[in-house]
Amino acid sequence: MPSFVGADMLRTLGIHRVIEPQGTLPQAAWKLDNTPVAQPSETLVDVQALHIDSASFTQIASACNRDPERMKKHILDIVSQRGKMHNPTTGSGGVLIGTIRQLDEIYGKTHGLAIGDTIVSLTSLSWLPLYLESLDDIHLDRSEVEVTGTAIFFRSNPLAKLPNDLPRNSVVAALDVAGAPSRVVPLAQPGQRITVLGAGGTAGLLTLCALRQRIGSHGEIIAVEYNEQALQDVDSLNVADVLVQGNATQALELIEKVRDACAGREYQADLAINVVNVPHTELSTILLTKPDGRILFFSMATSFTAAALGAEGIARPVEMHIGNGYMPDNGAVALQLLRDFPLLRAIFTRRFG
Amino acid sequence: MPSFVGADMLRTLGIHRVIEPQGTLPQAAWKLDNTPVAQPSETLVDVQALHIDSASFTQIASACNRDPERMKKHILDIVSQRGKMHNPTTGSGGVLIGTIRQLDEIYGKTHGLAIGDTIVSLTSLSWLPLYLESLDDIHLDRSEVEVTGTAIFFRSNPLAKLPNDLPRNSVVAALDVAGAPSRVVPLAQPGQRITVLGAGGTAGLLTLCALRQRIGSHGEIIAVEYNEQALQDVDSLNVADVLVQGNATQALELIEKVRDACAGREYQADLAINVVNVPHTELSTILLTKPDGRILFFSMATSFTAAALGAEGIARPVEMHIGNGYMPDNGAVALQLLRDFPLLRAIFTRRFG
Repeated sequence: MPSFVGADMLRTLGIHRVIEPQGTLPQAAWKLDNTPVAQPSETLVDVQALHIDSASFTQIASACNRDPERMKKHILDIVSQRGKMHNPTTGSGGVLIGTIRQLDEIYGKTHGLAIGDTIVSLTSLSWLPLYLESLDDIHLDRSEVEVTGTAIFFRSNPLAKLPNDLPRNSVVAALDVAGAPSRVVPLAQPGQRITVLGAGGTAGLLTLCALRQRIGSHGEIIAVEYNEQALQDVDSLNVADVLVQGNATQALELIEKVRDACAGREYQADLAINVVNVPHTELSTILLTKPDGRILFFSMATSFTAAALGAEGIARPVEMHIGNGYMPDNGAVALQLLRDFPLLRAIFTRRFG
Repeated sequence: MPSFVGADMLRTLGIHRVIEPQGTLPQAAWKLDNTPVAQPSETLVDVQALHIDSASFTQIASACNRDPERMKKHILDIVSQRGKMHNPTTGSGGVLIGTIRQLDEIYGKTHGLAIGDTIVSLTSLSWLPLYLESLDDIHLDRSEVEVTGTAIFFRSNPLAKLPNDLPRNSVVAALDVAGAPSRVVPLAQPGQRITVLGAGGTAGLLTLCALRQRIGSHGEIIAVEYNEQALQDVDSLNVADVLVQGNATQALELIEKVRDACAGREYQADLAINVVNVPHTELSTILLTKPDGRILFFSMATSFTAAALGAEGIARPVEMHIGNGYMPDNGAVALQLLRDFPLLRAIFTRRFG
């Protein structure tokens, strides 16, 4: 970890690249200076592809009637206006894939990097100064654009080296949600009952494998998933003890199903992980967790007030965590899971190529 | 705790009062049936006052230019639209003061209640069917509205009897935010550096006293407050070691101030408590906390995504908790602080009467 003190801290965060409004951090800024020349403490990356956040890409595709040429122009316009690929409508970014051209010494040591390494950003694109020379193929199926350009990384921006032994698209998909499995591992204990809501999604599958690896055969893993196809993927992985197909936005109905699936045994979890990608699933999660249990909300659709007031309203003292996307392992846990679980890797390859 | 099983659980939670959307719990519902007649398992309360959540009251005051008549109309409109005082903009509620008119037997036994007892709800108003006959005086200084009306309590809704030895308004103000001091105590450890943002507010002052009582002279308490008057109250309490006047929405400026106030010593907290009542204070809180520290967000103005993506963007693995308003002590910790700290009680009496 770099230390954050004084003017160093400001440079570490990239405040010197903010054009407007002054005094904000790069992510909150409207416009960044994207001059493609590395200043002291900065690292310069040749960018090959942008993996645009799903909410942002969907919005752009819709605004441009899925016309690739219009979409390219739209993306170029955003980057030239803001100096970063930060969709002003959705407020979201995505990640980039690139190669290190110029390397800050401290940053290189922190992350074990060398010039020429291929990397994936683990900071949102809404944070990184981006300069595009050209925009080439656009892949509507996986929210990706091939580009020629450069990005600036600050010392505080996390990233991951692309491994050689795993398919690139699977790696990018796994890194996008790597915080969930990474942060679940230290919280889970053998002997616990652990429930994962949204278990068949990318984050859910990784989390299930991480949990099984952590607790072995000591404890019980309950997987809740809405989509039938995704639930079949969970089943085929063979890492969950109880599978429930149900809708987490329908709290009461879901609880009945989980209770039935547990057939008279205790059904409330010691630890619940919410990785559902739709809103209004807070109460289901709380009701499926023991009053003295713990919940990790990883879904970006989580409402702070719904969770806080929901627990209060039903008199549950449960401990609730905001799933922090940053992981000190820079995604290593998630990538190792793809190696350790061949069935997981197969599902990722099928889904993402 | 009542036990939650089957159809009983549904009634216990109040699901039978939900008008829309069907299948949701009362807090998540857009609209409740507020018919002022107690059904089996319900308790009917004559309501004398609404003590509206600070984030909600501030929003309403701002939307109505602090004009009392417009604010009254705004509040009546919300209640007539939703059957509860659930601010659709902030998503938050508040508490009510009332007298038991009709008492469910099981509820009465759980809480030691009798008809005629004066009580304060410890469930958010966003959960309770509320029927207003009239809306009388509005007290801008203490976020309170005197009303004539009735509310329905379900068996799962926590409440507190009003004690005789403390001023009513002070008790209500303390109970409204009692979750903060109650939940902070088990998390704080002697020897820690603990920062409270919004330290001069109601929740802040209680939290400071709870922390000082918990850690004694072992550790350091940093109090951050924007308002000069409120900061003087913090000063007069003599429970904080470092006082900083600053704006938590201006992260970089605030960090400079806290660092200056700590004069070269470490300034980042092991534990930070956010009880600020305005949005956009997540990054300040994260930057004032050690990377391996812990944050308790109690402000209803907290944005889940701003916290999660903010920590990710600056590579901080900090553990962030959603402040759960429910406390098994039903507010006893907060009320005892008013007894233990005469200076605190004096500030509350001055502020709230």
